[in-house]
Amino acid sequence: MTKWVYFFGGGKAEGKKDMKELLGGKGANLAEMTNAKLPVPPGMTITTEACIYYSDNKKWPAGLEKQIKANIKNIEKVTKKEFGSVENPLLVSVRSGARVSMPGMMDTVLNLGLNDESVIGLANKTGNERMAYDSYRRFINMFGDVVMGVSHEHFEHEMDKLKREVGARQDTDLSTEDLKELCKRYEAVYKKHTGKPFPQDPMKQLEAAINAVFKSWNGKRAIAYRRINNIPNDWGTAVNVQTMVFGNMGDTSGTGVAFTRNPATGEKEYYGECLINAQGEDVVAGIRTPQPIESLEENMPKAYSELLQVYHKLEKHYKDVQDFEFTIEEGKLYILQTRNGKRTAQAAVKIAVDMCNEKLVTRDQSILMVDPEQLNHLLHKRIDPDAKVDVIAKGLPASPGAARGKVVFTAEDAVEWSHERDEKVILVRIETSPEDIEGMDVAEGILTAKGGMTSHAAVVARGMGKPCVAGCEDISINYDAKRFTVAGVTVSEGDTITLNGATGEVIQGDVELIEPEISGEFKTFMTWVDKIRALKVRTNADTPKDSVVARDFGAEGIGLCRTEHMFFEGDRIKAVRRMILSEDLEGRKKALDKLLPMQQGDFEGIFKAMDGLPVTIRLLDPPLHEFLPSAHKDIVALAGEMGVSVEKLEAKVKSLHELNPMLGHRGCRLAISYPEICEMQARAIFEATVAVKKKGVNVKPEVMIPLIGDVNELKVLKKIVVEVADDVMKKHKARFSYMVGTMIEIPRAALTADKVAEEAEFFSFGTNDLTQMTFGYSRDDVGKFVPMYVDSGILERDPFQVLDQTGVGQLVEMGVKRGRTARPNLKVGICGEHGGEPNSVEFCHKVGMDYVSCSPYRVPIARLAAAQAQIKKPRKTGKKAAAKKKASKRSAAKKVKKKKKTAKKAKKKK
Amino acid sequence: MTKWVYFFGGGKAEGKKDMKELLGGKGANLAEMTNAKLPVPPGMTITTEACIYYSDNKKWPAGLEKQIKANIKNIEKVTKKEFGSVENPLLVSVRSGARVSMPGMMDTVLNLGLNDESVIGLANKTGNERMAYDSYRRFINMFGDVVMGVSHEHFEHEMDKLKREVGARQDTDLSTEDLKELCKRYEAVYKKHTGKPFPQDPMKQLEAAINAVFKSWNGKRAIAYRRINNIPNDWGTAVNVQTMVFGNMGDTSGTGVAFTRNPATGEKEYYGECLINAQGEDVVAGIRTPQPIESLEENMPKAYSELLQVYHKLEKHYKDVQDFEFTIEEGKLYILQTRNGKRTAQAAVKIAVDMCNEKLVTRDQSILMVDPEQLNHLLHKRIDPDAKVDVIAKGLPASPGAARGKVVFTAEDAVEWSHERDEKVILVRIETSPEDIEGMDVAEGILTAKGGMTSHAAVVARGMGKPCVAGCEDISINYDAKRFTVAGVTVSEGDTITLNGATGEVIQGDVELIEPEISGEFKTFMTWVDKIRALKVRTNADTPKDSVVARDFGAEGIGLCRTEHMFFEGDRIKAVRRMILSEDLEGRKKALDKLLPMQQGDFEGIFKAMDGLPVTIRLLDPPLHEFLPSAHKDIVALAGEMGVSVEKLEAKVKSLHELNPMLGHRGCRLAISYPEICEMQARAIFEATVAVKKKGVNVKPEVMIPLIGDVNELKVLKKIVVEVADDVMKKHKARFSYMVGTMIEIPRAALTADKVAEEAEFFSFGTNDLTQMTFGYSRDDVGKFVPMYVDSGILERDPFQVLDQTGVGQLVEMGVKRGRTARPNLKVGICGEHGGEPNSVEFCHKVGMDYVSCSPYRVPIARLAAAQAQIKKPRKTGKKAAAKKKASKRSAAKKVKKKKKTAKKAKKKK
Repeated sequence: MTKWVYFFGGGKAEGKKDMKELLGGKGANLAEMTNAKLPVPPGMTITTEACIYYSDNKKWPAGLEKQIKANIKNIEKVTKKEFGSVENPLLVSVRSGARVSMPGMMDTVLNLGLNDESVIGLANKTGNERMAYDSYRRFINMFGDVVMGVSHEHFEHEMDKLKREVGARQDTDLSTEDLKELCKRYEAVYKKHTGKPFPQDPMKQLEAAINAVFKSWNGKRAIAYRRINNIPNDWGTAVNVQTMVFGNMGDTSGTGVAFTRNPATGEKEYYGECLINAQGEDVVAGIRTPQPIESLEENMPKAYSELLQVYHKLEKHYKDVQDFEFTIEEGKLYILQTRNGKRTAQAAVKIAVDMCNEKLVTRDQSILMVDPEQLNHLLHKRIDPDAKVDVIAKGLPASPGAARGKVVFTAEDAVEWSHERDEKVILVRIETSPEDIEGMDVAEGILTAKGGMTSHAAVVARGMGKPCVAGCEDISINYDAKRFTVAGVTVSEGDTITLNGATGEVIQGDVELIEPEISGEFKTFMTWVDKIRALKVRTNADTPKDSVVARDFGAEGIGLCRTEHMFFEGDRIKAVRRMILSEDLEGRKKALDKLLPMQQGDFEGIFKAMDGLPVTIRLLDPPLHEFLPSAHKDIVALAGEMGVSVEKLEAKVKSLHELNPMLGHRGCRLAISYPEICEMQARAIFEATVAVKKKGVNVKPEVMIPLIGDVNELKVLKKIVVEVADDVMKKHKARFSYMVGTMIEIPRAALTADKVAEEAEFFSFGTNDLTQMTFGYSRDDVGKFVPMYVDSGILERDPFQVLDQTGVGQLVEMGVKRGRTARPNLKVGICGEHGGEPNSVEFCHKVGMDYVSCSPYRVPIARLAAAQAQIKKPRKTGKKAAAKKKASKRSAAKKVKKKKKTAKKAKKKK
Repeated sequence: MTKWVYFFGGGKAEGKKDMKELLGGKGANLAEMTNAKLPVPPGMTITTEACIYYSDNKKWPAGLEKQIKANIKNIEKVTKKEFGSVENPLLVSVRSGARVSMPGMMDTVLNLGLNDESVIGLANKTGNERMAYDSYRRFINMFGDVVMGVSHEHFEHEMDKLKREVGARQDTDLSTEDLKELCKRYEAVYKKHTGKPFPQDPMKQLEAAINAVFKSWNGKRAIAYRRINNIPNDWGTAVNVQTMVFGNMGDTSGTGVAFTRNPATGEKEYYGECLINAQGEDVVAGIRTPQPIESLEENMPKAYSELLQVYHKLEKHYKDVQDFEFTIEEGKLYILQTRNGKRTAQAAVKIAVDMCNEKLVTRDQSILMVDPEQLNHLLHKRIDPDAKVDVIAKGLPASPGAARGKVVFTAEDAVEWSHERDEKVILVRIETSPEDIEGMDVAEGILTAKGGMTSHAAVVARGMGKPCVAGCEDISINYDAKRFTVAGVTVSEGDTITLNGATGEVIQGDVELIEPEISGEFKTFMTWVDKIRALKVRTNADTPKDSVVARDFGAEGIGLCRTEHMFFEGDRIKAVRRMILSEDLEGRKKALDKLLPMQQGDFEGIFKAMDGLPVTIRLLDPPLHEFLPSAHKDIVALAGEMGVSVEKLEAKVKSLHELNPMLGHRGCRLAISYPEICEMQARAIFEATVAVKKKGVNVKPEVMIPLIGDVNELKVLKKIVVEVADDVMKKHKARFSYMVGTMIEIPRAALTADKVAEEAEFFSFGTNDLTQMTFGYSRDDVGKFVPMYVDSGILERDPFQVLDQTGVGQLVEMGVKRGRTARPNLKVGICGEHGGEPNSVEFCHKVGMDYVSCSPYRVPIARLAAAQAQIKKPRKTGKKAAAKKKASKRSAAKKVKKKKKTAKKAKKKK
């Protein structure tokens, strides 16, 4: 006979935690807690197989009814209560519970077992008649609604009517008699809409509730949810029937919520709140103020001492801080639910370190206890969680942290307000461009109306560690009037707003912010993290300043130094523009000669900051039109400044215009058209190398050529770089080592990685562009549909935030594999925005990359993510691999020695 | 002893044609011709291995000198001439010849063997002293320049000096004595620049020339060429040393060029020209007018009859029309070179059919004899090859054929000039957009300044079978002044130009055009082609008119019907714009309701034209902004027309603006945002299906959803289409079959094709977009660098013209394989522009596609390419596969019968 029902209660359960497929997640956990000797109210779990049988055959399988009845008897035995009793009635809850948590399934039915008789029993037992009838009328409503599909409104309507009749304003104004009357009326509503009287037999109630759960598996919403989330239809749901316990049975009853440690600070202390003579919903409703858990010691010393044992038992069993709900029914403690407790970042780190020191968890386990994303809170200001905020709009959480300041609408205003008026400002733009860098640098935070998670504003803000809310499409900006409007609110220049970069919220007015603080535990924790990880973590930094910040955060080199940002500063943009406007090679070279010493200076600064660490420098990437203005009045101004005709300048701007600049004349394509740009940049890099080496700085530049789609592009440009390097060495009679490599950011480069690696000494995956091209999404334009795709489940996640392993990941993996086929010692990293995202870092670890590179403020996150990846799927670490290499060299050396010896011997013999 | 030298001559050769690796292409072919008993001047080939040995060791391998000397003796024996003889000197040519033809290697040295003595021998033998000394001075110059690196200028300088001295204007004015003097002076130049006297020993001359060839293998240009073309350095080059023959030895000597059949018409007739008493270079120089080949019959009957035998021998041996060079030296015929003869398209088809009928080639071989691209000439007008043309600019050859007409600059003008003035016009635009369709339709041809081979202008023109020159970046168009300028020439509205769409040439003025004509042989040929091919050929057509044209060209269905083109006609654009401007669903639905009957009408027309054949309809693809104007004045006009404020319309245009529209809100992304558009289109398709079925038309629509990147997109939209189909069937109480499939045009769709195929019933590879995304090239912007990439060898070919098998091809192959893993009977085709390009068609055949689809005028080309692909790499054809299926069914049926019989028998036994 198939076993359809699993009992739990009285310290023993037939199921266990690894039986989720059969008992569902909830059922398996109830069994687990019971077996762990936690005082769980007894009950039974009806298997998912029973559900599937019912779905297929529209009836219960043979034996199910018998087994349910037998288990009700078991429950009655353990609880000493009885179904339908007027003395001590057994009441149960009925809940669905599939293998994975699934919205769209049946809600809970509570207090099942109440009828016109047992309600009296409940009144007798609790000495609280009002509570008994209140429970009964709730049950009729819930059963009618959830099980029989009678709309909640019909019951609500009766309630309102009665309240009007008796002049009650609140539900609580109703007397016991009123509630008795309400029960009758509810039963009438039930009969009217179902055509049948409200069932009085608890077993009939139970049967109907179980069938309702079974049916909910094939409800419209559940099917839709499964379809989108690829959950098979034949999993089915389990049904949990569990004894109700009551915290409102008098002064030796109560209910509460507790944490095994302080979730705010991580301190190891008893932490929790309770309400005497109350039910769980009273705690939630917040009508009465709960007392600290210690107050139980006096009132209910036995329950309290049991509670303290539960604290220990829970942590020992679950190896983590537990957030659990309990009810005390007449002095007897019950645990209704437990789960890993949510905690602040600070607490998470402290708890992980403490639990490891207490030997409750291993060091590996402790590292897995902290969510890498949480570290953001330790590194950035955040909004006081107790502050009241007036959210006026929501955009994308583009760069974490919180900022408040006065609104300005141009980069120039930002600089002026900040420098001359000493005001803190928030820069609000439709979108930002490299020309806004200075303004962004002085602003507290940045808000843009357009652009996604990898838009210019987002990338730069993250690099600066500055909060940014991007793509806030609801706000309508009027630059001329210096104001923006959103949902009826107008915010003008000088008005204060607060940004929450972690949530994307835009808040009107000033809000209290909390400063970040680094604890001793954090330092310990990060030491552990660094010891374990195999993946190196570098940073994306374009200035000496950023480099220093990143190094403080633990960066082990620069994975991406974007040279074009240097082109915008001060006078440089003039030289750049002069180069673009030159008609011939000579003119361009003249302009480039002016840029050379400036770029060299930048590189010297960065090399010094990164002394001893590798620095990857990407040659010019953006299309040239980005360096010219586009608005007519700006063109007129520039023409005057440059001494060329407006007509000529406009023609140039027009000729550089592209329909899809992202797929246009940029990256290595520019360098092939204008090799002199590549040559100047290579010269600046190598001249800087020689200059800092003279000062004792240890530097190994890695020259990275962007946007390669065919190995021939790399061939042509590598030749230029190598020739310049030779030339610089000759000129200074100096030697230095360097590498030439490429970004893999075009699908074709990944597909032909074996060929590309014949020329490239390293690969760096530019997963921003690779994602754009693999999906065919312009990251500047995705605001129109990607959020909608994520909301509707078409995409699981925004692929610009989390690397798409299904599609883009295939190309990355292919690129790594094929690249190493051609060049086994190929150095491989990632420098797209994904390099600081934990899921993506894990992926990079898995495919065997050497390093990830991310913005300075994400370096600690990447370090932790890398350590977690190593714990989950160990791979030979750098040290171990090096040791192995050494060992194999040694043995090879031995073999050679041996050979020589043998040869000698052979000689001697002769 | 290694064999370093291979002899050929006297009817026998030591090498043969499959020894290209050892003897180079030229050497192997000389051996081949000799063995075929063709009268080839005798000579020897020094192997590539000797070259490699020399490169590595800087000296000849042991034995080489001996072998060369022995073979010179052989040559002397066969020719009865002698190296350095004053009676009958042996002169030879020395040429390099690698495995593949390779520019950058050594030029030819002719007349080697001449010296101060043998020049007298040559004069004696030829009785032409002037010719002998002219040959000698040429030899000194050539040897000095090519072998010893003495600049040609130094010799030229002496020549000019002498001419001044004797008052000669032309080289031919120099007397024999002048030439003797020149030889002396040349020898002095040689000595001055090499430090050594000019070598008199023919063997020394030969040694130096051979070494020069060896060295040229590692010359700068040769290395560069090999690098770009991936030719290994260790192939080496062979050296061919061959007896010189002279057609200028008197009246029984001569030289000429002949074709074995008429290359213009394909007629089987002796065809050729010759010059009596002349050398090859005289024919080329065009100073004397050659005579028809028949003139030899009288003068040199023996040589002539030998020549006629050569015609037969060559065709029999090479199985193709040969274009050969011959020289007659004192009545003896020599064949210097032969190659497959270039021919007109008409001739190619006739020759292929004739040779097959003559049993000279098999039918398969005859099909391979015609270049598919050549068929273009049979289907389009072309420029009279004898016409004198004034080319003023050159763009991309975007759509073949030739056209002449008066220049207009707007689509409206094109319509007006054409309809009201009855003028033939050429539409000249910076670029075209869907709004220009009507103007393009009435124009003879289209010229654009921007855009590539797959730009709007190019694609539409090819669809219309109309010549188009696109991306002609040199022309500068001034719309306001209605003129364009290029290289100093101004062309104004009304001026006549002629376009050559096959070459991209823009020609000033009127040029004679030749009308295409279809021969009987062409029809026969295409019947053969259709019998053999496995791949079906469909067409890309958006109108009933195009469909009819394509069907006439042999299209077997529509592979791509773009519905958006229908949206631009007449009043429809108004409804489309009204839909775009609607604020809500209701407004959009109202506008769509107006479009529904129009779209339905279109589909009915197309279904009728394609009765019995499949029709693939792609749902709306372009971003919505393409349907709105962008210029301010157009917006103002439209606002008035639509009754909305200019401000509102401008805001809408702005909100639809995208930075990279190619990667933006279009394709299925639009349909997911606005499901009502998808619904309307599905309804129009299915209502049309029902309507035409009632009239007896056999139709099976294939609904194609564009731009899928994730299977979930397809899930959502397929559901809508299926629901509409069910609804239409229910409404009309009708049944019809249809398919729902997708374009694979986004890399991610190819990478996840197994998942996509779970929903898609067919795939159609949109290789235009797939190429854009795989390379990261915007096809609208590639004009800036792709032509340069192709010119410099970075890319072998423009990937928008010829499918890139290296990169994009991987995704296509992956897509087909993975798709069929999930759905073995998945129908797969291609509908990008590559579907009509022969190389790409071959690839499609190879990866197992079911069909290719191309513009109507390329259908015959695709049919031929498909047949050739099948011949090169056979795969089970539809018929064969069907027959096999049938057979297996039959055998299955037999088995069933057998079983039944057995069962019967068993019964009987019982």
